[in-house]
Amino acid sequence: MEQGIRHFQEELETLKGRLLEMGGLAEERVRASVEGLVARDVDLLGTVLTGDEPINRLHIEVDNRAFRLLALHQPMATDLRAIVAAVKINSDLERVGDLAVNIAEAAARYLGHAPVKQLIDIPRMGSIAQGMLRDSLDAYVKRDMDLARAVLNCDDELDALKTQVFRELLTYMLQDVNTIEPALDLILVSRHLERIGDHATNVAEDVIFMVSAQDVRHHPPAAP
Amino acid sequence: MEQGIRHFQEELETLKGRLLEMGGLAEERVRASVEGLVARDVDLLGTVLTGDEPINRLHIEVDNRAFRLLALHQPMATDLRAIVAAVKINSDLERVGDLAVNIAEAAARYLGHAPVKQLIDIPRMGSIAQGMLRDSLDAYVKRDMDLARAVLNCDDELDALKTQVFRELLTYMLQDVNTIEPALDLILVSRHLERIGDHATNVAEDVIFMVSAQDVRHHPPAAP
Repeated sequence: MEQGIRHFQEELETLKGRLLEMGGLAEERVRASVEGLVARDVDLLGTVLTGDEPINRLHIEVDNRAFRLLALHQPMATDLRAIVAAVKINSDLERVGDLAVNIAEAAARYLGHAPVKQLIDIPRMGSIAQGMLRDSLDAYVKRDMDLARAVLNCDDELDALKTQVFRELLTYMLQDVNTIEPALDLILVSRHLERIGDHATNVAEDVIFMVSAQDVRHHPPAAP
Repeated sequence: MEQGIRHFQEELETLKGRLLEMGGLAEERVRASVEGLVARDVDLLGTVLTGDEPINRLHIEVDNRAFRLLALHQPMATDLRAIVAAVKINSDLERVGDLAVNIAEAAARYLGHAPVKQLIDIPRMGSIAQGMLRDSLDAYVKRDMDLARAVLNCDDELDALKTQVFRELLTYMLQDVNTIEPALDLILVSRHLERIGDHATNVAEDVIFMVSAQDVRHHPPAAP
């Protein structure tokens, strides 16, 4: 039995390790897609467009590991919450990977046109989304509720930037018909970045649930 | 023990019932958002914009029920797969509900402008997405792998329509500056519908996993 418990804890640590590996890949792909857009680097975008195999493999592996832990060890309380959280976080990270591909697709189209005057707040949206992702995964590792709550607060800033980016690009489009196509792609990029922030928010909510068994979804955040 | 098992099966049926209730609400909200756009019915859009409380409540309830079943009964094999599938399907349905709100938001803005000549294939995309959602939930109830596989095949059609809608609207935008704003909103609606199809695809994949313990994600569908 002692050995069974030790084995379980090792397997649980491996599961968490794989999940973090996946988070690292997802974050790197978001970074590369935005960097490819900013630096007009088609090759870098190409690595995002063709490189989703490792993250897809990890997605399946994490699910299988979580399922096996549930089936073989029937974990309780904290461990059970950590495993259920891992299953959910796994879905979110896989979608972040897909969104990085969507950003790279829009960015590659964008680079085929004359550039819109400037990228406005898109690089800033990229850093915020990446920061939220990194912090939410850090919060998972450290079981840090404060850090998870800080991620929830960033989401409003990202939403506001998305709205502002939309308005500015719309102005360009209305003034100059040549900006319509590239501006459309930038609007799509900003929406993809906002959705990455949403997924980081989901991860942070799962961390709060995991640590506190408290469900913060669909409720306004508590006063600090 | 007998009683424990009976109690477990009852609780599992309740969980599935709540999940279906949630699916029904999500589907109805998608229907209302597209119908509101087509019929230019601002009141109907308003019901979508303000009515997400029941689905959010069910989202939390389904998660809690699933977690309690895992914690108290340590289910095995088929039952365990059904519960893990319920947790994942639950996330997908909640996001479908959010996407219905996004469609209603874009539709409400759209109705504030002179209409674009026609809605092109958007109503058709709406029926396909709703059909996929309905079939994926039917497949969950009936444990019907064939129906689940049929849902996976619809996704390509929806993707192709999204691309076509984008091209047609872009043509309008380039020809007439007055169509830029409303056409932008229609592009967003078509993307939201395509994402609803993606969530229905996720549900169908979870059904296939639940019934067969076979993972079909990230693999091309097998020849029929």
